[in-house]
Amino acid sequence: MPNPTAAMLVIGDEILSGRTRDANMYFLAGELTKQGITLAEVRIVGDESKDIVAAVQALSERYDTVFTSGGIGPTHDDITADCMAAAFERHIDVRDDARALLAAHYQSTGSELNDARLRMARIPDGAALIDNPVSVAPGFTIENVHVMAGVPSVFQAMVATVLPTLKGGAPLLSQSLRIDRGEGDIAGPLATLAAEFADLSIGSYPFQKNGAYGANIVIRGTDGARIDAAITKLAEMFA
Amino acid sequence: MPNPTAAMLVIGDEILSGRTRDANMYFLAGELTKQGITLAEVRIVGDESKDIVAAVQALSERYDTVFTSGGIGPTHDDITADCMAAAFERHIDVRDDARALLAAHYQSTGSELNDARLRMARIPDGAALIDNPVSVAPGFTIENVHVMAGVPSVFQAMVATVLPTLKGGAPLLSQSLRIDRGEGDIAGPLATLAAEFADLSIGSYPFQKNGAYGANIVIRGTDGARIDAAITKLAEMFA
Repeated sequence: MPNPTAAMLVIGDEILSGRTRDANMYFLAGELTKQGITLAEVRIVGDESKDIVAAVQALSERYDTVFTSGGIGPTHDDITADCMAAAFERHIDVRDDARALLAAHYQSTGSELNDARLRMARIPDGAALIDNPVSVAPGFTIENVHVMAGVPSVFQAMVATVLPTLKGGAPLLSQSLRIDRGEGDIAGPLATLAAEFADLSIGSYPFQKNGAYGANIVIRGTDGARIDAAITKLAEMFA
Repeated sequence: MPNPTAAMLVIGDEILSGRTRDANMYFLAGELTKQGITLAEVRIVGDESKDIVAAVQALSERYDTVFTSGGIGPTHDDITADCMAAAFERHIDVRDDARALLAAHYQSTGSELNDARLRMARIPDGAALIDNPVSVAPGFTIENVHVMAGVPSVFQAMVATVLPTLKGGAPLLSQSLRIDRGEGDIAGPLATLAAEFADLSIGSYPFQKNGAYGANIVIRGTDGARIDAAITKLAEMFA
């Protein structure tokens, strides 16, 4: 049975403007791979309502699970929760359970639960809250979409909460072999190998070091013995 | 007049599996911003023909310019050129101009121009070659799509070739101000500021340092005097 599929939607002008280098996608990709869930597509869109709505609808329909990051803070450009409500035609307002979390937190820290902070308690009807052990304001799950913060420490904590609840697949295993030949010399034998081991994914990642060409060949799959067989054959080809 | 728009399509299993952290998107985002071109969307897909075709068609139709990275090498998983031909319904085969480039290069280096390397001369009809000063195998431009290599040094060289040929807009300017208050205390005044300066983009990027909360407020736009006025008003609000 093929592994479950996932997609990620990164929301925020700061990635697209080049101000911030994405860290959440790289983190999530690694975590999903370990759990045997195939990250099949990523989209990055800006803080535009119609773009966010269209992207989450397309990804939610196509993949088993969707993760979003960004746009759930207290400021005027944090529009993700309202976009999710629109995408799934749910009513949205400040919800009592989320308000209670924030009220307790701000009381203990001596800050005011003002209108801006209350925006973080806007949760679509029927969504389940995702715990935020870092800064309290929750994420939420709506249909097959997990809506999470963009701040990396919070994003990672939310992923840690959500991942154990998902049905994983067989973990993706991999082995790699460095071949100190030009990729053009490797490609022919590699295609033969890929045809023989069609159940595996075989990638070639070229490099150039001190003027010499080479490539790291990475063989991925869920059957360790098959990967062993393929990498052994590959090593023989270039012995 | 609004600035020209661009999208990027990153092609490759290695980003989605978490093996490689993307560098090309971050580089391109910064370059486009400097040139006044708005990077409006990024998609990352794996080495699947139908996904690549669908994504490039959608992005090409919607944005002024599209950049792709990855999948134009000599190995069996390098399918980008064929996907571009399919997406724009063009014939594709080894093209004489590209073959000549490769033949000269491999003759000078003493390597054989074998079938695998010849795959890198497969260029759709009507596409214009993009120079590759690093490792010769060219990229190409088809319709409004610039098809480039995934290896960062080659990608960057190709961007340097293509960018001067594009119509830029007013460069995006920015100023930022660090405010050592919780984002929830900043959000209200910030929304007022954003409403007054609706022609600017005002973003808030929260941080936590030594237990204290703060946020960097970044104000972006194409009119330096307006940005000055907004950042001055912001500073007064939190003086």
